[in-house]
Order: sequence, then structure tokens, then C-alpha cells
Amino acid sequence: MATTYSQHALTLPLLPRGSHLVTEHITSSLPEIRNIKCGLLHLFLQHTSCALTMNENWDSDVRADMSDSLDRIVVEDKAGKGIYRHDAEGSDDMPAHIKSSMIGSSVSIPISQGRLATGTWQGIWFLEFRNGKQRRKVLATIQGEKMAA
Amino acid sequence: MATTYSQHALTLPLLPRGSHLVTEHITSSLPEIRNIKCGLLHLFLQHTSCALTMNENWDSDVRADMSDSLDRIVVEDKAGKGIYRHDAEGSDDMPAHIKSSMIGSSVSIPISQGRLATGTWQGIWFLEFRNGKQRRKVLATIQGEKMAA
Amino acid sequence: MATTYSQHALTLPLLPRGSHLVTEHITSSLPEIRNIKCGLLHLFLQHTSCALTMNENWDSDVRADMSDSLDRIVVEDKAGKGIYRHDAEGSDDMPAHIKSSMIGSSVSIPISQGRLATGTWQGIWFLEFRNGKQRRKVLATIQGEKMAA
Repeated sequence: MATTYSQHALTLPLLPRGSHLVTEHITSSLPEIRNIKCGLLHLFLQHTSCALTMNENWDSDVRADMSDSLDRIVVEDKAGKGIYRHDAEGSDDMPAHIKSSMIGSSVSIPISQGRLATGTWQGIWFLEFRNGKQRRKVLATIQGEKMAA
Repeated sequence: MATTYSQHALTLPLLPRGSHLVTEHITSSLPEIRNIKCGLLHLFLQHTSCALTMNENWDSDVRADMSDSLDRIVVEDKAGKGIYRHDAEGSDDMPAHIKSSMIGSSVSIPISQGRLATGTWQGIWFLEFRNGKQRRKVLATIQGEKMAA
Repeated sequence: MATTYSQHALTLPLLPRGSHLVTEHITSSLPEIRNIKCGLLHLFLQHTSCALTMNENWDSDVRADMSDSLDRIVVEDKAGKGIYRHDAEGSDDMPAHIKSSMIGSSVSIPISQGRLATGTWQGIWFLEFRNGKQRRKVLATIQGEKMAA
């Protein structure tokens, strides 16, 4: 069977700090997924202060709770107590780097019969950890066996 | 050399909340690994309140300590203080979503000469974050170059 | 187009506890990346008390802050209060296992036109969580479509 690799540079919409469901944006930007019978989609953020993950796709409260929880776990030095050495880019910057490595900046999702083989309640999340809206780029790599012609 | 992709839908045994070593269950369910000379195994949980990771395969204390530590890091609102918006499914639910993204719901493991190329002390862990036992599904994608016939 | 898989067992330099930028060490050990037009590099640590991640490649303060933050989030039982069951290998050992699963022991990075397709500020980090210097092995799997001959 014919194996294929393709890459696509995607730009995410400008999104504020928080957790966002981007499944629809990603899949509609990658029609090539339909041509893959069995394979994988790899999504890779080319940035170090945001993240990608798989999580619940229904209740937006889950996304708000995720962001708040990460803010509790990775403290932000708003009062300037000197918690972080790296503070020149604002108090949101260093916590953003830590959350990025904690959640991860890429996901790999199986493709089966031309569709992402996600569970019923699973979606692709983009987490913006910086205060300002940033232009975020995702490099998508699609690989696998092509559908029979 | 011939490249191959295959996918297998696995069902994990019903396991209680906690960290579990599932290397044996996974590898015995995937005899196709033996046919791969050089490649990768991708394991993908189709759920959002449990996780997969690589960790220590010998001392069960490590697994108990992992679960306890995650409970300390991601607080559960047992007293109903209103820490989370999303609380209709029980106090274990929202922390489960957070831990799932923190640990991750998939792993990629190299395959060399028909075997998982893990270190001596490395095993595949499944972490159940919900209180009840759930039927959990893993989609395995095996890819690589086949052994010479 | 011709698809290729190759694996290379790398040994990291002996590095102390902390966060280290290893992009140069990894890429100079893997000249085969230059032959890949479109593909992926998978790096897999064969250990359970260290981690690999993508993060900021410029300011070493970010790396020091990362290590300190993880020490705050995953507490070390230096006073021997009995926080962990697994303590025979030293107070740094169990926190190392937890951090390893939290950050992750592998990364997948896209390869485009013979180069890692990382963002401007992105580098490959190795995080050593144990006090002593350890000999750490990384298994690299390179896959993709070869450059036209």
C-alpha cells in the first residue's frame, strides 16, 4: 500500500489567554486527512508559552477550570516577589513556559478510515498562557497509508 | 524496504482509581510488534479523565506515590467549596481532566528488531483518575519497516 | 516517493540535576535528518527519572526557573517526614519519577526539507531530576520521505 507524508503550516485564530477548543479549525484546515486509511496526525506548536492537548469537547466550564487550575499550580509572581529570574517579559511569561512543558506543545492523533479516531468526548485544545493575543503557528504532519484509489 | 501501518482497538481491564502497569497487557495484545524491524508504537486513550505514561516497572510503591502526589498537586473539592465550575459528575471528575492533560493521554514507543525498545526499568502505565471502574479503550497504531521475509 | 525509518542510540553528556539545552548535541549526532524532506524525529529517553521537552532556547534563566518551579510543585521529602513510600534511593528519587511523567520522556519534532521545523525560540531540553550525574540514553527514530536523489 502507498505510504504518504505531508506537512501543512497552520495559523491559529488570535485567541486570548485561556483554554480553547480548536478541533474544527484544525480538521477543516486539513482536508488531506480524508485520504488516509490508517495513520497519524502530528500537531506541533512552534512556540514555548502555549500548549496543545486532548481533552473534553463539550462543557466550556472544563476549559475555564483547566486554566484556573494551572494558574494555581504554577504560581504567577504578580506582586514582584522575585520568584522567577526570568521576568523581563511580564509576570505571565515564565509561568507560561512552565505550563507549556507541563501540558506539552504537540499531540499525535490516530487517523482511521479518513477521520481522526478520537473518542466521543475528545477534542483538540489550544492553551494560550500569555496575556496578549499572539499569532500562533502549528505545523501539522500527516502520515499513513492512503485510501485505495 | 516495506513500510507498514496497522491499527488495533484494545480494551483495558477494568481497573480502579490509581496507577497501573499495563506493559504485559498491551504487548500481548499486539503480536504484530514482532514483525517490525524499525518503527514506532503509538498508544492513544480515547478518553479525557485517565492517562498513559512511561515510568518505573518494578516497585508498586512508585505507582501509589504517583497517584497520591497527583492528588496533592491537583486538589479535589471534596468539601464542595466551589473550587471548580464543572462539578456535576462528582468531585473526582474535574481533577481527572486536569491530570489527564498534565500526564498526557498517549505515548509513542520505539520498536527495534521486533521488540519495544524500552529501558530496563521502563514500563507502560495506565492511570485511572475516576473513582468508578470504567471501560477504557486504547487505539494502538503500529508503524515501521517490516522484518525481512 | 521513498519512505525511510532509521534508529540511532545516543548517549547524552553527563549532566547535573537541572534543565539543559541539548539541541546542538542531538542534531549533530543525527546527520541523517538532512536526508529527510518531510517527516518526524522521535526522541525517547530510556529512563524514568529524567525528561525531554521543547522550550525556550535563549535565556538560561528560563531553565533555572523551570527546575526550581518543578521542585516547588513536586515536593521533595528532605526532612524524611514519610511523604513517599518509595524512599530507599534518596529523597530526590520519587519526585524525579513524578516530574518525569509530568514533563514526559519523549518528544516528536517535525522535519522539513532536511531540518528540524522548530520555531525561532524553540530548543530541545533534557531535564535531569536526580542529584548524581547519570549516563542517559536516548533512542532517536527518524522517519519520513527522503530528499530526491
